[in-house]
Amino acid sequence: MLDQTKEINVCLSPALIHLHDIRNSIVVVIDIFRATTSMCYGLANGAEGIIPVAEVSTCAIYKDHGYLLAAERNGEVVDGFDFGNSPFSYVSEKVNGRTIVLTTTNGTKAIHLSREAKNVVIGSFLNLTALCNWLRRQDDPVLLVCAGWKDNFNLEDTVFAGAVINKLKDSHQKGDDAAIAAENLYLAAANDLADFLAQSAHSKRLQHLGIQKDIDFCLQVDLLNTIPVLKGDRLVVLES
Amino acid sequence: MLDQTKEINVCLSPALIHLHDIRNSIVVVIDIFRATTSMCYGLANGAEGIIPVAEVSTCAIYKDHGYLLAAERNGEVVDGFDFGNSPFSYVSEKVNGRTIVLTTTNGTKAIHLSREAKNVVIGSFLNLTALCNWLRRQDDPVLLVCAGWKDNFNLEDTVFAGAVINKLKDSHQKGDDAAIAAENLYLAAANDLADFLAQSAHSKRLQHLGIQKDIDFCLQVDLLNTIPVLKGDRLVVLES
Repeated sequence: MLDQTKEINVCLSPALIHLHDIRNSIVVVIDIFRATTSMCYGLANGAEGIIPVAEVSTCAIYKDHGYLLAAERNGEVVDGFDFGNSPFSYVSEKVNGRTIVLTTTNGTKAIHLSREAKNVVIGSFLNLTALCNWLRRQDDPVLLVCAGWKDNFNLEDTVFAGAVINKLKDSHQKGDDAAIAAENLYLAAANDLADFLAQSAHSKRLQHLGIQKDIDFCLQVDLLNTIPVLKGDRLVVLES
Repeated sequence: MLDQTKEINVCLSPALIHLHDIRNSIVVVIDIFRATTSMCYGLANGAEGIIPVAEVSTCAIYKDHGYLLAAERNGEVVDGFDFGNSPFSYVSEKVNGRTIVLTTTNGTKAIHLSREAKNVVIGSFLNLTALCNWLRRQDDPVLLVCAGWKDNFNLEDTVFAGAVINKLKDSHQKGDDAAIAAENLYLAAANDLADFLAQSAHSKRLQHLGIQKDIDFCLQVDLLNTIPVLKGDRLVVLES
């Protein structure tokens, strides 16, 4: 049944977030390559929490206090840190029982800009269906925040936003043109997600860094049911 | 022949324009409903020039100096002005031989933000092919600036950007993810442009104002060959 009171909107870049009603929305932060994928995977693999921080220097403050430190800039691990945002660093042998402090080029910034929301949850293809099932049961409008690349629009985050919109089409109405566009892009991409997204600027950037396997990993749909949610300063597993 | 040195990029909102290399680009300003459509139509109908100004108060300064004053805000003619941005106000009986001073909610703002470009030209479905034929002959990269709606992404400007990209696919390479997205949206819309754009927020806004005929007018493809170009403070007909 179509509940016309539940809107879903899309913020295509962190630089446009001031145009949206954050405080009254559930925000889904999306950074497919690779931050939000790795957050879902790390929590599913037993990490106790992930503390997103905006700056590398803030991340460094947590050194020698038992945290795993992760810092990525421009697609690469920052010198002196345990790891960056490759999902292959977030396997259970490395993260089980640990708390990770993480800073990334785009994803952690988008989380910080969203923190006034009613709820901040984390989306990736890995938890797509679980996330949509949960969103469908909530009463508040949904804002899908694409982390983009240095404030630029990107294809993979928008296509994922479109996948969520398409899955929620019976419960949520598209509130803005960005939602209409995102769903159309998803429909254009759905037949062969990997092929469609291979055109994207960030895919090319990652290919250049020799991490095609990270891209393939990030495009796996419904690998897990974990939904990270922001509680205070950290992401933890949402108990639904 | 594909000249890999000529890039085409898309700025999806005036709020993202700082991310782009304006100074080294030819900028095409796009505000399909209705500012840039009316600019093309007015110059084609013999207007001597169109002076885009950012503020209603600036527009008012030109009063009693022989100019036609046009001011639109939120889709309506501002009280006390000759007309707004409906294309039906830009017919030759009204504009031939006249200079128009124009301020609109989005289009004139986008022109102002673009004025450091190598060239600022004006695009609409009315002059699509003429514009693309001219762009194809230029050496500089192209930036398509979507005026949007109060800094929000909009569907009709992006679909038009996609039409330009699609027409230039043999001469220009897509430089950013926004260009890839715009072309895909155009391809989704091309079969029935009016039907696809009827979903858009601004279409609904204009329908609400009772100006469906303006929408239909703005979606006419290749009605004219006129390309408005910014020279100093005004738009005039590009002599190509």
